[in-house]
Amino acid sequence: MDITSQLEEKINNKTKPLGSLGILEKLALQIGTIQNSTEPKLIDPTILVFAADHGITEEGVSAFPKEVTHQMVLNFLHGGAAINVFAQQNNIALKIIDAGVDHDFDSNDLIDCKVARGTKNMLHSAAMTKEEVKLSLEKGKMVIDDHVSPQCTIIGFGEMGIGNTSSASLIISSLCKIDIEICTGKGTGLTEDQLTLKINTLKKAIEKHPDTTDVMDVLQKFGGLEIVQICGAMLQAYEKKMLIMVDGFIASSAFLAAYKINPKIIDNAVFCHKSAEPGHIHLLNYFKATPLLDLGMRLGEGTGGAVAYPIIKSAVEFLNKMASFADANVSTGDA
Amino acid sequence: MDITSQLEEKINNKTKPLGSLGILEKLALQIGTIQNSTEPKLIDPTILVFAADHGITEEGVSAFPKEVTHQMVLNFLHGGAAINVFAQQNNIALKIIDAGVDHDFDSNDLIDCKVARGTKNMLHSAAMTKEEVKLSLEKGKMVIDDHVSPQCTIIGFGEMGIGNTSSASLIISSLCKIDIEICTGKGTGLTEDQLTLKINTLKKAIEKHPDTTDVMDVLQKFGGLEIVQICGAMLQAYEKKMLIMVDGFIASSAFLAAYKINPKIIDNAVFCHKSAEPGHIHLLNYFKATPLLDLGMRLGEGTGGAVAYPIIKSAVEFLNKMASFADANVSTGDA
Repeated sequence: MDITSQLEEKINNKTKPLGSLGILEKLALQIGTIQNSTEPKLIDPTILVFAADHGITEEGVSAFPKEVTHQMVLNFLHGGAAINVFAQQNNIALKIIDAGVDHDFDSNDLIDCKVARGTKNMLHSAAMTKEEVKLSLEKGKMVIDDHVSPQCTIIGFGEMGIGNTSSASLIISSLCKIDIEICTGKGTGLTEDQLTLKINTLKKAIEKHPDTTDVMDVLQKFGGLEIVQICGAMLQAYEKKMLIMVDGFIASSAFLAAYKINPKIIDNAVFCHKSAEPGHIHLLNYFKATPLLDLGMRLGEGTGGAVAYPIIKSAVEFLNKMASFADANVSTGDA
Repeated sequence: MDITSQLEEKINNKTKPLGSLGILEKLALQIGTIQNSTEPKLIDPTILVFAADHGITEEGVSAFPKEVTHQMVLNFLHGGAAINVFAQQNNIALKIIDAGVDHDFDSNDLIDCKVARGTKNMLHSAAMTKEEVKLSLEKGKMVIDDHVSPQCTIIGFGEMGIGNTSSASLIISSLCKIDIEICTGKGTGLTEDQLTLKINTLKKAIEKHPDTTDVMDVLQKFGGLEIVQICGAMLQAYEKKMLIMVDGFIASSAFLAAYKINPKIIDNAVFCHKSAEPGHIHLLNYFKATPLLDLGMRLGEGTGGAVAYPIIKSAVEFLNKMASFADANVSTGDA
């Protein structure tokens, strides 16, 4: 019997009506299949938060000033941000990575993967050089290899970068071939007028870099340094058979790029939360994905994954710990 | 400043875009308001599972034989059911109550609140006597007073009772004035033919007890012993200012009855999971409620509350532990 059949038999013999644990049953099947085990384990859960700055902020596309990127990195390092609280609550290891912040940090707790001091303004040139894209993918892989527990079986990805919803909108628009207007939202809290300015700015970016559809090209022209490092880290997490928690508008755009590079990565993905940022739904539709949670959050940082993690754990727990009908001497149904 | 304004100010000053934690922010506001505190706590979380038998099972309305009620009670006591696994995972105290199972148990771990050995077949008489309804409400109150930690601030309710989706459908149909057909589903797994039989049986019950709309009358004619005890326990949990996790088709019908007795109980309710049992959506619509989770589960036992509990905890954790903009020296947005 193959692993899928073994898992299905185990799930169906638990003391519950057939299928009555819904999505938890599908998750248990997915995780058991990835680990090729009827007793899969969630070991050393980890969330990586990559931070970087964005040249496009010059154009006034964000409600917050650019300085907030490095200020929030310090907040992560001091334990005060939402992702710190949720990671601590659920016993998830949290690592903060400087992928390209325009600030000199002095902290041993920060993983230094700085490739540049922010991207360039994509209205004037490509956001990154080809070499920066290549190096960012490598640095992302390196974070998995060097900074994540080798036993880790489940990983999530967050980001911090004022201006990065602009990058994410352009990546999703280009790779899914969806109009930029419907992929663009208010980010951290733009007014209607500011949203109009943001959309017009992103249209100018597309005019500057027309016909950008190849994934490497898209990342170079529109990408953020943190987005490309997340993409590289996700690809390596797949190679290491980790379950990949996908959540957040920006990290999801990185997953989309990773999928374009290696479509098999979808087998290891759990979509954790439907972002309130309007472009996210188009990306979810592209993958025909229904996320575990829809709590109206739009914070990034990997918070959707951190909050959803206990539900994923519930799937593994029922598979490993519930009694079967035979174990418990419970009669089965007639249906 | 009143407590609501104090809580809103605290929430809005956390290091995150305004409103970006979505439903978690609403939950934090609700819990703080119930506890009249800007530092609310979730203490001694508890789930109570009430079990009872149902005379209507004689009519073949369930996919499982009646014996499964007591077999599953033994499974709960031995720790093998889904609710055991999820309660243990999330450090929730679990108590099992015999509200009216047709079986003699020999266990010190079971709370004995047996009012009768199951209800009567409602096709032939009222399911319960008036005295049984009154006693069941009192026993439910007593479980809160005598068997739940006095410090407890959050409580959930589960049930076990083969045949009890029939009771729940009739209660929801009668109290919300919704046609019985659209309140009736396949329960633990009926075939289409069996569902037709179930609907016809419930129509006969309504013919036997026409114009039953008063809540006490509805409980007496159609109720289950476990449903009425849950109703009594929920009313007392409200008096003790507990947050009430509402989930599951049957426990939700008990909540509806409790709401008809004391409408203020809605202030303390968190709807945790949208059941896959089709009648549940009508009850949620009645309360204009959007549950935290929609995982396609339809198991009962309080499993929706147990799985959702960490999300409620996330709401309290961010309120108590996240840094404010001032604490963290992070610049605020301009929007």
